[in-house]
Amino acid sequence: MVPRGFRFSVAEAAIKRPGRNDLALIYSETDASAAAVFTSNRVKAAPVRLDMKQIRSGKARAVIVNSGNANAATGERGMRDAREMASLAGKWLGVPEGLVYVCSTGVIGVALPMDRIRPAIRKLAEGHGRASLEEAARAMMTTDTFPKLSWRKVKMGSRTGLVSGICKGAGMIAPHMATMLCFMMTDMAVDSGALKSALREAVEDSFNSITVDGDMSTNDTVIAMANGMAGNSVLTAGSRHFGAFKRALSEVAAELARMIVRDGEGATKLIEIEVSGAKNGAQAKKGAMALANSLLLKTAIYGEDPNVGRVMAAIGSSGIEMDEKKTDVFIGKVRAVRKGVLVGAEREARKELKGGEVSISVRLNSGSGRARVLTCDLTEKYVRINAEYTT
Amino acid sequence: MVPRGFRFSVAEAAIKRPGRNDLALIYSETDASAAAVFTSNRVKAAPVRLDMKQIRSGKARAVIVNSGNANAATGERGMRDAREMASLAGKWLGVPEGLVYVCSTGVIGVALPMDRIRPAIRKLAEGHGRASLEEAARAMMTTDTFPKLSWRKVKMGSRTGLVSGICKGAGMIAPHMATMLCFMMTDMAVDSGALKSALREAVEDSFNSITVDGDMSTNDTVIAMANGMAGNSVLTAGSRHFGAFKRALSEVAAELARMIVRDGEGATKLIEIEVSGAKNGAQAKKGAMALANSLLLKTAIYGEDPNVGRVMAAIGSSGIEMDEKKTDVFIGKVRAVRKGVLVGAEREARKELKGGEVSISVRLNSGSGRARVLTCDLTEKYVRINAEYTT
Repeated sequence: MVPRGFRFSVAEAAIKRPGRNDLALIYSETDASAAAVFTSNRVKAAPVRLDMKQIRSGKARAVIVNSGNANAATGERGMRDAREMASLAGKWLGVPEGLVYVCSTGVIGVALPMDRIRPAIRKLAEGHGRASLEEAARAMMTTDTFPKLSWRKVKMGSRTGLVSGICKGAGMIAPHMATMLCFMMTDMAVDSGALKSALREAVEDSFNSITVDGDMSTNDTVIAMANGMAGNSVLTAGSRHFGAFKRALSEVAAELARMIVRDGEGATKLIEIEVSGAKNGAQAKKGAMALANSLLLKTAIYGEDPNVGRVMAAIGSSGIEMDEKKTDVFIGKVRAVRKGVLVGAEREARKELKGGEVSISVRLNSGSGRARVLTCDLTEKYVRINAEYTT
Repeated sequence: MVPRGFRFSVAEAAIKRPGRNDLALIYSETDASAAAVFTSNRVKAAPVRLDMKQIRSGKARAVIVNSGNANAATGERGMRDAREMASLAGKWLGVPEGLVYVCSTGVIGVALPMDRIRPAIRKLAEGHGRASLEEAARAMMTTDTFPKLSWRKVKMGSRTGLVSGICKGAGMIAPHMATMLCFMMTDMAVDSGALKSALREAVEDSFNSITVDGDMSTNDTVIAMANGMAGNSVLTAGSRHFGAFKRALSEVAAELARMIVRDGEGATKLIEIEVSGAKNGAQAKKGAMALANSLLLKTAIYGEDPNVGRVMAAIGSSGIEMDEKKTDVFIGKVRAVRKGVLVGAEREARKELKGGEVSISVRLNSGSGRARVLTCDLTEKYVRINAEYTT
């Protein structure tokens, strides 16, 4: 499950509290072509601002990640700290600091404990290869309850490449990737421009199609690294095996995104929402996101209450074009609304809400736009987790 | 507290369940000039569609309101039922049915029990004047925990007018007035055009500046009636006392809106959010609404956790123009962020979150746009109420 040439290590810097590894290093033995997608939040954490500059080179050698502290809203000091993390890792790894990316996740507005981070970075760098991919995934967890890993093999004639990803994220998940970090690695050789376009596409249908609570983080980052150690000739957008690579990247991203929703803070159900028959894809997505962020719908599903009235109210107020009289709603396989009118299938619909995975489908019958979004239910436990987070 | 010439009655039709008055009548002894504002939800309840037609006349004589059933997503049958309610009330009151407005609130997608509503409407009409304003306000409650009334006197030289309002609403409250009904009555004589402009202004700064959960209803309606029984000469936009009338109407609306938020489902704290220094007023409002709808912020305040990082993250992702480096955040009177950097005033800020009313102020220092929005915290109880609503 680990692409050739990628090595990992973890260390403890007691960033928020002692007793766990809260630093991880991803290291590629050779320069990798790289692409990244960052939060669209206007407030960006220091490491995000650093990485946004560095990614212009289209190259990467290492990523250093800490949990327990987001290094956001920390001003000039935060920028200095992020740069020092890259520079120390570069020094101990013997690679240019411009090829070291820094990612942070955790509490906002608190300065990093650099006195404890500095020696830990040296240990990280010197120990690269001593940790598994799963240990790296585990070190970057915050409120996550399980580490998130996914991988796919890609056949290229006689050669085989591997695309692997790890990510973290459980709360504050919204369109455009909220407090989530994701690192995708492949041993395939991929041109950085082609890698960028493949990554954007993969992100749109995965991390940008999930929402836990509609909040968006200051730190979201997805970095893809392709180090070419599979020995294939460099893939560009026109290459024969580029489609297979893109598919693998998208599948890994989708699987990781699904894990994030499944791990949604306090969630008991994974909810798949589909809006079809919208005027176009953007309208379908806007409608699906509105449903996925409706507190009333999320609480109803938690209560296994097939309250399709809330579906109608949420799609109607989403701001998309629709005709109530043409709208059908399905709860699982049961049609609960037909041409805008509830059909009284409550008992059957209720059964569709039992179990850990449920689906809501809204058919607007007004066009060919279609979108699918994943979310989870809203529970008392979500409130408890988030009322007590920093305290 | 009741303007001259307005009379009320209530009746029980056991619409959702027996044991309470769930129908109310507001009746004006003479034709009143009228204005109204309705939900902007694309899915509109049958009574909303009916009232939208009728308000074109600029006149009203009566409003009939039921709780327990929204008569939304009920198709043709729903339209017939709404029309029949107006027609029966008109018949028994002896007024044109076109001057009778119908409002419904409650569960979506269930047909009204017209067999029980028909005789109750006759009782309502025959008993007009037998109920108090408060009893009328009580009959339209759903998850509200208290009836909501407000009034203001208006001096016009030697004459005195009265502006009174009642409303219901506790959950599903969002920008643009979600599941709330409000009826404003005055015995002043006001031209219907002037009434309309005064009402729009009053609604913008009250019901359109509150949010409990970001959801928007299919039934929101605000109706204002001015029956002229105070004997003043008809107020138009240019009249000397029109300003005083507008102020009274706005104050009543603001007070009712504040009551709705205070009664927010499961809420323990009223939160006043101000965004100032935005590029313009619309941007300020968008930013304030984004903060008010942030689940992470609402749960943090519930936990009395001065998590200003969540304030920064929410304003940054609101889509408005801002410069992190110019942004200050105040929790109550305590400055917690200065020029984008957290200043470590956590202990003082925490004290500002004790008690039932708290304030968050974001100063963007980039313009003169300013907006204030009221919301409430998000608690386990909100989840419980809404997970169990129809069951």
